[in-house]
Amino acid sequence: MLPNHSQHKINSDERSGQSLRHLITSSDLSFAMEAHDGLSAAIAQQAGFKALWASGLSISSSLGYRDANEASWTQVVDVVERMADASGLPILVDGDSGFGNFNNARLLAVKLRQRGASGVCLEDKGFPKMNSFVGNRHPLADVDEFSGRLRAVKDTVPDMVLVARIEALIAGYGLDEALLRADAYADAGADAILIHSRKSDATEILDFARQWADKLPIVIVPTKYYKTPISAYRDAKISTVIWANHNMRAAISAMRTTCGRIMAEESIAGVEPEVATLEEVFGLLNYDELSSAEDRYLPKHA
Amino acid sequence: MLPNHSQHKINSDERSGQSLRHLITSSDLSFAMEAHDGLSAAIAQQAGFKALWASGLSISSSLGYRDANEASWTQVVDVVERMADASGLPILVDGDSGFGNFNNARLLAVKLRQRGASGVCLEDKGFPKMNSFVGNRHPLADVDEFSGRLRAVKDTVPDMVLVARIEALIAGYGLDEALLRADAYADAGADAILIHSRKSDATEILDFARQWADKLPIVIVPTKYYKTPISAYRDAKISTVIWANHNMRAAISAMRTTCGRIMAEESIAGVEPEVATLEEVFGLLNYDELSSAEDRYLPKHA
Amino acid sequence: MLPNHSQHKINSDERSGQSLRHLITSSDLSFAMEAHDGLSAAIAQQAGFKALWASGLSISSSLGYRDANEASWTQVVDVVERMADASGLPILVDGDSGFGNFNNARLLAVKLRQRGASGVCLEDKGFPKMNSFVGNRHPLADVDEFSGRLRAVKDTVPDMVLVARIEALIAGYGLDEALLRADAYADAGADAILIHSRKSDATEILDFARQWADKLPIVIVPTKYYKTPISAYRDAKISTVIWANHNMRAAISAMRTTCGRIMAEESIAGVEPEVATLEEVFGLLNYDELSSAEDRYLPKHA
Amino acid sequence: MLPNHSQHKINSDERSGQSLRHLITSSDLSFAMEAHDGLSAAIAQQAGFKALWASGLSISSSLGYRDANEASWTQVVDVVERMADASGLPILVDGDSGFGNFNNARLLAVKLRQRGASGVCLEDKGFPKMNSFVGNRHPLADVDEFSGRLRAVKDTVPDMVLVARIEALIAGYGLDEALLRADAYADAGADAILIHSRKSDATEILDFARQWADKLPIVIVPTKYYKTPISAYRDAKISTVIWANHNMRAAISAMRTTCGRIMAEESIAGVEPEVATLEEVFGLLNYDELSSAEDRYLPKHA
Repeated sequence: MLPNHSQHKINSDERSGQSLRHLITSSDLSFAMEAHDGLSAAIAQQAGFKALWASGLSISSSLGYRDANEASWTQVVDVVERMADASGLPILVDGDSGFGNFNNARLLAVKLRQRGASGVCLEDKGFPKMNSFVGNRHPLADVDEFSGRLRAVKDTVPDMVLVARIEALIAGYGLDEALLRADAYADAGADAILIHSRKSDATEILDFARQWADKLPIVIVPTKYYKTPISAYRDAKISTVIWANHNMRAAISAMRTTCGRIMAEESIAGVEPEVATLEEVFGLLNYDELSSAEDRYLPKHA
Repeated sequence: MLPNHSQHKINSDERSGQSLRHLITSSDLSFAMEAHDGLSAAIAQQAGFKALWASGLSISSSLGYRDANEASWTQVVDVVERMADASGLPILVDGDSGFGNFNNARLLAVKLRQRGASGVCLEDKGFPKMNSFVGNRHPLADVDEFSGRLRAVKDTVPDMVLVARIEALIAGYGLDEALLRADAYADAGADAILIHSRKSDATEILDFARQWADKLPIVIVPTKYYKTPISAYRDAKISTVIWANHNMRAAISAMRTTCGRIMAEESIAGVEPEVATLEEVFGLLNYDELSSAEDRYLPKHA
Repeated sequence: MLPNHSQHKINSDERSGQSLRHLITSSDLSFAMEAHDGLSAAIAQQAGFKALWASGLSISSSLGYRDANEASWTQVVDVVERMADASGLPILVDGDSGFGNFNNARLLAVKLRQRGASGVCLEDKGFPKMNSFVGNRHPLADVDEFSGRLRAVKDTVPDMVLVARIEALIAGYGLDEALLRADAYADAGADAILIHSRKSDATEILDFARQWADKLPIVIVPTKYYKTPISAYRDAKISTVIWANHNMRAAISAMRTTCGRIMAEESIAGVEPEVATLEEVFGLLNYDELSSAEDRYLPKHA
Repeated sequence: MLPNHSQHKINSDERSGQSLRHLITSSDLSFAMEAHDGLSAAIAQQAGFKALWASGLSISSSLGYRDANEASWTQVVDVVERMADASGLPILVDGDSGFGNFNNARLLAVKLRQRGASGVCLEDKGFPKMNSFVGNRHPLADVDEFSGRLRAVKDTVPDMVLVARIEALIAGYGLDEALLRADAYADAGADAILIHSRKSDATEILDFARQWADKLPIVIVPTKYYKTPISAYRDAKISTVIWANHNMRAAISAMRTTCGRIMAEESIAGVEPEVATLEEVFGLLNYDELSSAEDRYLPKHA
């Protein structure tokens, strides 16, 4: 469909940027919901979320790629464009490690912003990166080199929200290394720190937050330590929680069940009550606007 | 991920083409499952389906577009490529009305085939088309002009399966017009006839099949008349049934529920048992192959 | 390279739009030079042109397509993005007939604007169109239907310059039909009228200008009537002259000569003095900026 | 336009692959001409060249990017597709350093082959690479790691011609390092060695050829040492000479001159005799085929 509010796109871009900045910097805990295509973005918007996380894992999966920088940076940019147009929401994009050096990172950021994203998150790894939950090959980037990537993005698109993601805990380097890197990335211009963990409890995340002492807002991704109650994050003055891949995982689960039943039943009658109606599809994507536009712009005799 | 069987891609393309032709022309009833991206294609393949339907409605929706030719033909081709690479299955592509005249239609077909599709379905409408279940503006194409589109595709990519979709019943022209068009399209080189209906029972479809008398295989899309038992199609010697949008609709339903719960619960702990695990994601997209390839191609010291 | 002035992109977009509007509406005769990719756009900018014409013929040719809407609308949008980023100039885009109906036209316009174009020109034909200099099959669009396309674009992106291109003279309908259409398109919201001719003299163009009496600015494309002196256009109060395909045609001529000589001479020594130096290439695309950015953003020890 | 020989595309792909292999492995000196888009590819084909070089520098420049991996790998693949479709010639693609690690390199190769390329050339640098004629920052890849990239490509698309490009002389490491690397790359499965130099004479290239003693075919790029007579390469049993960027450089030179004259003269009358005619444009891109197809596929009354 047409981009939401397309007539006032530029103003709306500016508002989205400020809106994401406000969500991340305000003292209230805020949330970003994963989306990976236009459809999931529209659904998250209609469910009431105020910001989207354009997840690298989910976008890769949706494209049938592995989360190891198989998708090109322009393919990712194209997906983000569809998400922005379908939802009108502020989007924080998982920019992986920036798709190369400082020059690739700033080019990525410029293009993401042009297509409607409000923020980009870069992680301190090399290219290609591997999904943080897969295997044990997660070499960290040199702090100075990665800081250069951050500075280049900040200088090029100062109005984008720049989130620096720290992989030191994923890579097994411990809290001191994580804090040291967080300091360096703050100096390099990051607007927030995403501290990542793949432990099943939030201990190391909460330790980090305590020692970090709120120098910059903290963003977290509790995919693995999902059992931690939200009050723990409020107490720790976490800024933003990313629900990082749950639209995609919900879709997989439902499509598997549906495919399995249709195969077994040789019929769609059984699944009909379980799946969205066509009217819901048409509603989600605003077919009414197209219908009224036809009345306005097509000749009466056509 | 790498295309399935990428080392023997050409042979595999030939096999896919023959395989789809066999499914559609054999006397057994066969099925094609809708997919709309790499992920849904991989899921349908692992569920056991032997062919995919690259649905225009579902692909449009996934991209956040309306099913009115908002997506460009090259965007559709790019999606089909991801589906082919992620599944290795024969794909029949919903080519809408061919994205223009005979020249656009044959260019579309050539490119779909290059990216791994085995067949293309063209409907006898103009450009842009509107989804057959939306509104009442469904002007039919001139029979001769549409036959020219079919002949151009047949001449250009003779090894693709060419399905001619008849919208006469959708547009309210009745059975005689539908049969007359089916005859013309058979003469123009179609390999099969897709007769479409938006009634809630299969009467007009079964009437068509009776009178058509098996001159070419019949393909049907029982989205609206889903209650009809499969035995009715076997009795009517229908060739192929397309489950046309159920992966997408299952995904919508699940994502809505999941978004709603996460919003309400401010937590992902509740939905965790309902969504696919990360291990399932990694399994679907064959991360094991990447891991063993790393062992084979990366230096030991890296 | 990075988009020109990328740090102030939004303001620069606004300036570009106003700048193109000023060029077209001011009483001075202004010029737009054809470009068809990033490179030709950068060359035209450095030669001093103040606006670019993103020619459908030239972009098609560069892509190896024919100027008959073989290139998809998103492929055209992607090319325009490269032109905008490489030149920073206001761009008037040849939008052909709008790639479908009013809905396709407004979607095209929204996306062109997002990628940096300042104006779009739509011609009153159907889809697909054929190049105006090829053959005699140039059916005109219904006036009301085409006016609807114009209104839809105007309503959706009011800050873009909207040029209505009249093909009545190309199609052999004469001056009265052209004037009648110009009036209708002015009512529909066009900012300027492009009156097209394939005669070898400018008589019918100048007749049109005289009778039109400056109700809206007039844009012309003197590809066929190239001998007419520029004073004739100034006298006729033409607003803008488009040099519509001369970068592309210059490039073809030079590449043919160069290929021919290299084939014949089995050497590049002979053509070396005739072709741009590598230093010119690096200068055109601002490699110096990259070099100084490396000094700024790469660690000293890297 | 439609891909050359589109009806027999698969066979033609196989022929192209064998044809490029024959050119590179035969004892005769052969030539590959640079092209960077559909148009330049068609021109080189019509000039009689038997193979194309899809130059990274030229493709980047055409897109308005710098030759430092600013263009994404999928953007390069899309350009190569246009070149293949417009020319039907065997294409050796400049794959830079493979756009990442072994996994990115093999994915690139699979996709290039799908779009019609017959061979890919990989250079032993990291990602992003910088053009070999720019600056002095050209760190070489680890031999084992780069050999892994070669092996991965060879295993994945064994029927593609795989050329290993050695940057040791560019980086100042001398002949011994170059020979050592050539041996390793031969062991890793390369079909030919491209030995690159930026000296203004061919001494180091001819020294390499002498010591290499024809273990694998040698490919050279005499952009800088263009004065060397072709007889020197025949004597040295060089396999293939790449004229690496001369279409692009000829086009730049001609477009600059043409833009400058049109600016100064406020007229296209002066350049008209210098630029290709529209008829040449239409001939290059086979508009006659479209015209005769219209006669065949459009209704007479249309």
